[in-house]
Amino acid sequence: MKFGGTSVANIDRISRAAKRVALEVAKGHDVIVIVSAMAGETNKLVGFVGETAPLYDAREYDAVTSSGENVTAGLMALRLQEMDIPARSWQGWQVPVQTNSAHGAARIEAIPTDNILRKFGEGMRVAVVAGFQGISPEGRITTLGRGGSDTTAVAFAAAFDAVRCDIYTDVDGVYTTDPRICDKARKLDRIAFEEMLELASLGAKVLQTRSVELAMRYKVRLRVLSSFEEPSESAGTLVCDEEDIMESNVVSGIAHSRDEAKMTLISVADRPGIAAAIFTPLAEAGVNVDMIVQNISEDGRTDMTFSCPTDQVMRAEQAMRAAKDAGAINFHDLVADTGVCKISVVGIGMRSHAGVAAQMFRALASEGINIKVITTSEIKISVLIDRRYMELAVQALHDTFGLDKAA
Amino acid sequence: MKFGGTSVANIDRISRAAKRVALEVAKGHDVIVIVSAMAGETNKLVGFVGETAPLYDAREYDAVTSSGENVTAGLMALRLQEMDIPARSWQGWQVPVQTNSAHGAARIEAIPTDNILRKFGEGMRVAVVAGFQGISPEGRITTLGRGGSDTTAVAFAAAFDAVRCDIYTDVDGVYTTDPRICDKARKLDRIAFEEMLELASLGAKVLQTRSVELAMRYKVRLRVLSSFEEPSESAGTLVCDEEDIMESNVVSGIAHSRDEAKMTLISVADRPGIAAAIFTPLAEAGVNVDMIVQNISEDGRTDMTFSCPTDQVMRAEQAMRAAKDAGAINFHDLVADTGVCKISVVGIGMRSHAGVAAQMFRALASEGINIKVITTSEIKISVLIDRRYMELAVQALHDTFGLDKAA
Repeated sequence: MKFGGTSVANIDRISRAAKRVALEVAKGHDVIVIVSAMAGETNKLVGFVGETAPLYDAREYDAVTSSGENVTAGLMALRLQEMDIPARSWQGWQVPVQTNSAHGAARIEAIPTDNILRKFGEGMRVAVVAGFQGISPEGRITTLGRGGSDTTAVAFAAAFDAVRCDIYTDVDGVYTTDPRICDKARKLDRIAFEEMLELASLGAKVLQTRSVELAMRYKVRLRVLSSFEEPSESAGTLVCDEEDIMESNVVSGIAHSRDEAKMTLISVADRPGIAAAIFTPLAEAGVNVDMIVQNISEDGRTDMTFSCPTDQVMRAEQAMRAAKDAGAINFHDLVADTGVCKISVVGIGMRSHAGVAAQMFRALASEGINIKVITTSEIKISVLIDRRYMELAVQALHDTFGLDKAA
Repeated sequence: MKFGGTSVANIDRISRAAKRVALEVAKGHDVIVIVSAMAGETNKLVGFVGETAPLYDAREYDAVTSSGENVTAGLMALRLQEMDIPARSWQGWQVPVQTNSAHGAARIEAIPTDNILRKFGEGMRVAVVAGFQGISPEGRITTLGRGGSDTTAVAFAAAFDAVRCDIYTDVDGVYTTDPRICDKARKLDRIAFEEMLELASLGAKVLQTRSVELAMRYKVRLRVLSSFEEPSESAGTLVCDEEDIMESNVVSGIAHSRDEAKMTLISVADRPGIAAAIFTPLAEAGVNVDMIVQNISEDGRTDMTFSCPTDQVMRAEQAMRAAKDAGAINFHDLVADTGVCKISVVGIGMRSHAGVAAQMFRALASEGINIKVITTSEIKISVLIDRRYMELAVQALHDTFGLDKAA
């Protein structure tokens, strides 16, 4: 059971979360509880670090920002003990959660189970583990990146071969689209790992992407549910294998992201190796390029368009102008368009249904929305459009694919 | 160098503290910095624990309350790095600071120096260590009790054979008495360990008592100084061996404590073993008895008076009435006087000067102050008096022993 920051935001909520744990203990389960920091705490600590040292040492960043989870873990253990449930807290280094040395975005490499299993053997019923953190081979504290407690939870579920991994958050499941944008959005009972992965990476901030990857690889039965709803067996959304979903719509969800900018290099000399010449310096500058489109070449010159997060536009421009100055590439002009957004339709049903793209484009056209860039994958079609049409596009696509009705 | 909570209360103050560390590094010293939690943080965490579980597990209390120091340690290391000083943070378990298992009031048993010394050997100039915390033989986090970072600092100074141990706090040294009560109070340049011990245990809250004991045992050159004053060689008060103090007044300081209550058992049967019969149940009830006076016996009965902290009066009464009901002791009445205070004069010079007690009693008598209880030790004379005379008594004693003038 993993409780996110809003689910442990104060002592009262920690107490309510503890009651949910108690229900599972009463059913005879031993439980590993993964906790986040109290809502706002990690942001406060990140702020301290930025204020202290703008160019910070990631090892010290980790030492500072991991402390919020330790507080919640201790408090949760205390609360469970008050309810006569044998419990104790574990910090990352005590388990130990072994990670690599990529401070600030470390990957879990192993979770030895013997320490915690021995305690279960001695009568402990709940191990409360501080999420988000681990220990490097050098013995320094590491953190797993924002949202990393989801990954901690799935990794523990895999390591301990858990019956279930329940992620308690402030939403009651995964929706067909953002309910704040489309009031017909419907909660999904089940979603396939692959779909969840696309949705997570497309900005539906329900689960950390890596936690979904891990759950898929280790076949963890992952459930997303709200800690503010009454407990029930059917609550939330089950993230599961494709085979466990009997019936589904062709399209499962519509994702959107405001955080996209479109950049176009005008009139690039079209020669073999030009793509590498452009995207190598961008990668080296740390620009996360998402979509890439190359227009038809005319007279040996072409336009090259790509998208990246809006806060990386300046970095991308610097990298491109530097590459031009160094003679590595040649272009006439560089145009950045920060007034766009990305809309994606996602669904494993696309694999076996032709015509999803055409239906998507027709729906957008009938609302007079111009498509600027298109990319597709096996289970996803994404387009960049003018940002002011974002809500309209999401609503139109939600309607056209009938997402307000279950399959 | 140890920085208390007010000296690291925010990023600006951490930055100022780091500048002091930089001065020592510039002189060629390697430095171990011990930090407290930001002012108020530990109280907040203690409050969380109390709110979560009134009868808390001390192991979880320690896991929660130790986290404030981890934050400050990381931030201080980051600040020093920003100033191009090679620094890193160490949490208690990383050093490791080995303690016993007395959670909440653990004692340091060993501080292996090899990890930190190896880093100094590799070019690190400052090790920033989270104070107040350690690790038990069972691998659980322990804390050293409130004010424990002073003890951490002295223990590190002893383990690493430090040139000096500078304790930065919000007062600029140790005073002859509380300046808020007596405007003639004078800062002492030096004070003997024994005197500091008496003053610390008498309520002058400058240093944790155990840190002074430890400094005395290991001959640590201990200096108390303010982090809000300009650095200078002569700043603060040096706590040192008696032999290092050339000239001193007979009396070094006047301490006072409001937190005293006087309890008298009226007409106790005076028989061998009666003191044990009274004070054993008090000890078992956790009452910290301070002064004890037995009046002259008349007709085989006597009055027994003792003092204890005011918040333990009820517990003491319960213990005494229970002992009476059980037939272990017999007394006519139990009178609690919570309107008293304790005034003490402290000075190693008393050992070689007769008449200090007489001079003290004369000074109080000439102000019309009645003495209720007297106790003496080799370097201290304490009296209980009516609380409303506290300020007057302190001022009169400060005058009579000429404490406003250096020896």
